[in-house]
This record gives sequence, structure tokens and C-alpha cells, in this order.
Amino acid sequence: MADALKIGIAGLGTVGASLARILQTRANALAVSCGRAITIQAVSARAKGKDRGFDLTGIAWYDDPVEMAEKADIDVFIELMGGAEGAAAVSVRAALKRGLHVVTANKALLAAHGVELAKLAEEKGLLLNYEAAVAGGIPVIKTLRESLTGNHFSRLYGIMNGTCNYILTRMEKEGLSFADCLKEAQRLGYAEADPTFDIEGNDTAHKLSILTTLAFGNQIAADQIYLEGISNISIDDIHAARDLGYRIKLLGVAQKTATGIEQRVHPTMVPLDSVIAQVDGVTNAVAIESDILGELLMVGPGAGGNATASAVLGDVTDIAKSRPGAQQVPVLGRPAHLLEPYAQAEMTRHEGGYFIRLTVVDRTGVFASIATQMANNNISLESIVQHSKTPAAGDQAKTIILVTHATMESAVRTAVAAIKGEGYLLGEPQVIRIERPKTV
Amino acid sequence: MADALKIGIAGLGTVGASLARILQTRANALAVSCGRAITIQAVSARAKGKDRGFDLTGIAWYDDPVEMAEKADIDVFIELMGGAEGAAAVSVRAALKRGLHVVTANKALLAAHGVELAKLAEEKGLLLNYEAAVAGGIPVIKTLRESLTGNHFSRLYGIMNGTCNYILTRMEKEGLSFADCLKEAQRLGYAEADPTFDIEGNDTAHKLSILTTLAFGNQIAADQIYLEGISNISIDDIHAARDLGYRIKLLGVAQKTATGIEQRVHPTMVPLDSVIAQVDGVTNAVAIESDILGELLMVGPGAGGNATASAVLGDVTDIAKSRPGAQQVPVLGRPAHLLEPYAQAEMTRHEGGYFIRLTVVDRTGVFASIATQMANNNISLESIVQHSKTPAAGDQAKTIILVTHATMESAVRTAVAAIKGEGYLLGEPQVIRIERPKTV
Repeated sequence: MADALKIGIAGLGTVGASLARILQTRANALAVSCGRAITIQAVSARAKGKDRGFDLTGIAWYDDPVEMAEKADIDVFIELMGGAEGAAAVSVRAALKRGLHVVTANKALLAAHGVELAKLAEEKGLLLNYEAAVAGGIPVIKTLRESLTGNHFSRLYGIMNGTCNYILTRMEKEGLSFADCLKEAQRLGYAEADPTFDIEGNDTAHKLSILTTLAFGNQIAADQIYLEGISNISIDDIHAARDLGYRIKLLGVAQKTATGIEQRVHPTMVPLDSVIAQVDGVTNAVAIESDILGELLMVGPGAGGNATASAVLGDVTDIAKSRPGAQQVPVLGRPAHLLEPYAQAEMTRHEGGYFIRLTVVDRTGVFASIATQMANNNISLESIVQHSKTPAAGDQAKTIILVTHATMESAVRTAVAAIKGEGYLLGEPQVIRIERPKTV
Repeated sequence: MADALKIGIAGLGTVGASLARILQTRANALAVSCGRAITIQAVSARAKGKDRGFDLTGIAWYDDPVEMAEKADIDVFIELMGGAEGAAAVSVRAALKRGLHVVTANKALLAAHGVELAKLAEEKGLLLNYEAAVAGGIPVIKTLRESLTGNHFSRLYGIMNGTCNYILTRMEKEGLSFADCLKEAQRLGYAEADPTFDIEGNDTAHKLSILTTLAFGNQIAADQIYLEGISNISIDDIHAARDLGYRIKLLGVAQKTATGIEQRVHPTMVPLDSVIAQVDGVTNAVAIESDILGELLMVGPGAGGNATASAVLGDVTDIAKSRPGAQQVPVLGRPAHLLEPYAQAEMTRHEGGYFIRLTVVDRTGVFASIATQMANNNISLESIVQHSKTPAAGDQAKTIILVTHATMESAVRTAVAAIKGEGYLLGEPQVIRIERPKTV
């Protein structure tokens, strides 16, 4: 049997502690599967005294993760601290410079510095694995990076934030408001005290930017993503969606178009009978459309200590099974120095179906005016629903819901702006994009 | 850049020809991703003259695949001929003995000789990759073999035969009979002229036996699988299932129980709102339940030249990215000489819910008799539906449908046998097992 693989874990929160426990309690089985033992040689965290359910005997403790990266007697540096900058970035750079393989679950770090770190790893012939950074336990990185090599990608999309999916699922199932469901999610630990990062789509955007690069071969461009969160989705939207045969999900979508790559995160209508529409609660899902394989959809736990630890463990065992300097999987699918600049497609040129919900004054001529504005912008309508009474808005109001055939974003924006100018709108119009799975 | 990886393809049917075309048309991109070129050095097939859409210039032609395995100047032998014995088995053995890596899409070969071939590969330090053998383009082998290392598995199940899923989907959507849908599937090329192997579950069983070994670490036991096909599923079953909130799928299921590992292939009721229930047509799906990760479901194309070629290509590029003798992924998840004997669980001890459809003479006392037999066997009922008139069976008949809570197979068999003995049954009773996804 080969020499043991010596690892150091920086960050002993839920994921790190779970990983350490698994490595200790399943040491024998892991050694059999990998052909060598995996030993925890060093750890780093803030509070040394805390009981985390694993045995620290014989493990070197470092208060400073950077010092661990620079000095510990390890082959692999596992970064589970989080954050795009600070200790995570400094210690990962130090580990790679020193010639250590790196495993990280840190989407923010990769979204900000992924290309730089990939270059560093590849120059040194090191592995940089990050399965846990996107969609938790779902093996989407390995699938894109290894299984689908040679495929050309047209679109990928997914539910990549459990907090948002939990809230949207609860809203539909219980008929509760966004605010109530958010509170519930916070109570259950599914949402942070400050939930902005999740509900406004930033978390999804970080993950999407990594998948985009793996699929399309561009440099990571997390700051060039069209972003809309779910905080203005109402129970009325959810009910109207269901009546029309759709369900609302927060999707991250990356799509190849004639003018570049679209990256967008927004509430999205998906057909009720599609597989992804059934993905409830904190569960994640990622769909990948490619030309040789066709369509692949993966559904699984997107967060949680154990599920994330499972993905980290897969990354570590991949390194254990390879021999030093042996395997040359490019970190981001193709060698980092060959990644192309990101060619951003204009969001105004996005083409797709749209759901438009308008609350209007209930008077003659309004409907004709709306229809005219749509026609003026060459927008063809798939369905029109009119509710005569909208109790929340008073007796004088009615709700008009339009679902368009595929049209251009700019046309929808122009039409909606024109409708706003007519003076009969009560409140802001709601516009939600529709995404249609190809087959599943 | 490293030396080119030289491959030989045995079998130039739909998959082999698709693979060859992709390797030629995407040679540059593949070389960039793999860090070395992949060149087709040799091919073997029956008819040399046929145009298969790729350039044979400079490629050595072998009429005999075994000769190619023994003599061609190649690093990797790709077996796409099919069949458990004959040329496929002989040539793969010859290739491994000679020190070539092997990629195969051949489930029958692995189901019959997988452990022997894995031992041979591991003794020689070779890779034996077979992603395409199970569920076509879905990366389930890689996921079990690499991503989930360290997990303990409780159950896996899947829709692994596109022919059966196509037929069941059509029956439900169009209200057609099994026989009509089978004819349609044959016309469209989804079913063979002799469809027995697909519709009686043998194909699913081969695939299941491989997944069982990857999950549970036992020797492959394809001949110890409980088997029931879909040919006696009627449109009445499908409608009754839907009325009760279920859909019928042919599932292969492997499950760890207190008395051993269950392997079973049979028509199965899955809840209508589960994700797997939405998997329509020829699409496949595999669900994996493990203790660290939780539940993972993968959905995608299970067959077809391109989808299968994509999986083969992933296997080849994995070898291209590794360096000779470098990577030591055990072929069947753990080293073949450490696989345990298969401990088969008794099917009579299977526990689960059951759907039981009885066509009975419409007379007083029948219902009470059925209820008594159920009670005598301690079977608790979740729902009971009685249709007074069953037109197909005549005015004197009625249909009684029972759905049980979790109970033991032996109890159901005893109760049904007792009911048969009462003399009021018209036709054979229909018994369909229920499978409940854990979360998705």
C-alpha cells in the first residue's frame, strides 16, 4: 500500500468537523477504497477547546491557517473557512505555492480568484478540487469537468440556493407571504439573520459563474451576471403561475447565444410537469444541456454539514487515488491560461417567454390599450387571464396576466414602460421570465 | 504536451461510429482539455466498406477484434460490440492481459464477468471504465465510484430501461394498451423485434447488478435478482394508480436490509408528486441514498448513439488525463479481490407498501372476505377503492383495489393465495409494489 495521504483541515465548522469525524470513523474503509490511508495531520480553527466529536490526539493544531498552509507536514490543504478574501485566499495561495494539493468548498473565493488559483495549481501540477462549492453534494463539478469532456454546451440552469427554494415552496404549499416564509426559514436555520446574499441571488450568482466557466470555457465573470432576487414575488404570482401551468423557482441560467454568453439569476417560471418543478424545499438541482449527451438533470442536497462534507470527501479521495503529480485534470475544465475572456450577451437581447402581471384600474379601454402596446412591440401572446376583482387592490382594480410567446427582453421592457405611461396601472407591474426545459 | 493516447475501437455500430466522428471533429479541443491528443489508431468491425462518417485514413483495420486487442499499436481498447461472451469477452481479456486500458459499454459482459475482469485490470494497474454500461449518458458509475467514496448506501433505484419507460408513459398519456405501445416502440426503434430482454426486466437487471456492487461492495450477482416485467401491466392498473396518487415505473431496486441485500426489478408505484414520477419516455433516472450525502437523483438519456458515445468519451478522456500507471480507481469501487460474496435477502421478506387489484364476482360477502384475509395476515390498509362496474369483465364483476401500509411480501402472498382459494376471483389478481423516495 502507498504512503498515507496527509491532510490539513482549515476551518472546523459544521462541514470541517463532519469531514474529520468521517475520516476517523471510516478510516479503514477509505484506505481500502483509495489504496492508501488518509490521515488528518493538522487542523486550524479559532477555538481549540471546543469538542467537535473527533479525536485531536496526534493532530497538529494551528491557530493561523496560513501558518498551517506554509508549515504543516501535509500533502493536501483543505480550506473550509469561506470568504473571498482574508485567511481563505491567503492560505490557499500559500498552499499552492508550496506545492500542496488544495480542496475547497469556497464559492466566493473561486468566483473572485478562481482563474488565478487554477493557473497557480496548473503551473505546479497540482490538483485544485472544489466539488462542494456548487450545489453541495451534487457532483456537478466532476460531471462538467470530467464526464462531459468533449461536449459543446448550449445551456445550463439550476436551483442552487436552498433558502430561496425553501421559501418559494412554503409560499406555494402554505399560501404564506414571502416575509412569513423568510422568518420561518430563519427560525429553522435555513436562512441567515441577514438573508440578503441568498434572497437577492448573489449566492446563486457565485455558483453560476463557476459552472459557466466549466461549460463555456470563459474566464470567471461573477460580477457580470444579471441579478433579480425573490423578495418581490407575491403569493398572487405563485397562484397565477400555478393556474397557468407553471411554478416559480429562483434559477441561475447560463446560455450560449449568438451575441455571447448570458448569465442570469432571477425568479423563473418552469412548467409544472417538468422534473425541476418538483424539486422542493432546500433541495438543489442542476440541468446541463450539451450536444452529444443531450440533457442531464441532477437533484440533491445543496447544503448541510454532511452533504457538503461528502463532496469534500470525494475531492480528497480523488487525490488519494491518484499518485503525486499524476492526474492532470484542468481545474476549470480547460487549462486556465487558455480560458477566453467572457463575452457577455446583452440582457436586453434575451429571448424567451414572459409572464406579466398588471394590476389596473377597472375601466373600459384598459385592456385594449395593453393589447395595443403588446402588438406595437410585436409581442405575441400565449395566454391572457383577467381577474375582475382583485380584493387586495380594492373594488376598482382588476388583474391582467399575460403570458408571451418567445420574444425579446427589450420589447417587453418597452411595452411595459409604455403601459406604465398610460396612467391606469395600480402598483408596479410584475415581470417574470419563463424557462422551458428541453426534454425533462 | 504528453504523447498522444492511442486508441482502438472494436465495434462500429451507432455508438462506435458516433465516437469516432466526435474524436476526429473535436480533436483539437479534446487535446487541449486532456493535455494530449487522442488518436484512433485501429478499428475493428464486420463490414469494412460501409461509410460511417469518419475518415479511415491512417487507421489500421482489423476484421478480428481479438487480433486488434492482441496486436494493434494502442494504449486503450474500446469494446463496443456487446454480448456477454464471444468476441467481446475474449478481446477484453486479451487487451487487459496485454496491458491495455479498457473502456466498454457492455453491461452483459460486466454482469457476467465483471469481477474477473476487474481483478485482471487491478493486477496489471490498468483502468477499466464502463460509464456507458448503465443508464447511458448519466454519470452514475463515476458518481458511485468516485464522488461518493466513503458513503454507506441504504438504497438505490432507477428507471434504467428506456423501452419500458416509453411504453408505460405512452400507455398513461394515450390510454393505449401495452401491446399497442410496444408496437409503436418497435416502429420508432425504441424496442427490438424480440423485446423480451427489455420488457421482462433482464436489461434492467444487468445494469442493477453493477450498481449494487458499486454501492454495497458485493460480488456481481446478476442471476440472483427478483424479476418481474411490465407485460401484464394493464391500462386499468395505470388509471387506478393515478387515481390513488401514483405512477407505474419499471424500477430496478437494490436495498440493504437486516437479512441481506435485496435486488429486484419489477413494475413499481411511485408517488405522483415525486421527481422520478415525472421522468417520461425513453429518459432514464437513477436515485442513490447514502448516509453522508443524503439522496441524489440523476436524470438523463439512457440510450442512443450520441448519449452513449458521450459516456464512452468521458471514460477515454479520463484515461487521457491520467498518466500511465498513475490513477488507481478500483474498477468496482473497492479492489475486486476484497468484494464480499453476495448476501441475498429473501424476496418473501421484502417490506413495503403494495397495490392489489382484484376483479371479483359482484356478490354480498366478497368484500368482507377480502378484508378478513388481509386482517388475518396483519396487513393494514392505507386505502380501499371499489368500482361497482368493471365493463370489461361484465356486469357481474366489480374491481376492488387495496393499497397496503408497509407489510411483508410473504403476508401479501399468503393473503392473495387465500383470496384466490375463496372462488370469487375473476382473472388473476394484480400485485404491484410501492416504492417511496426518501425526499425527492
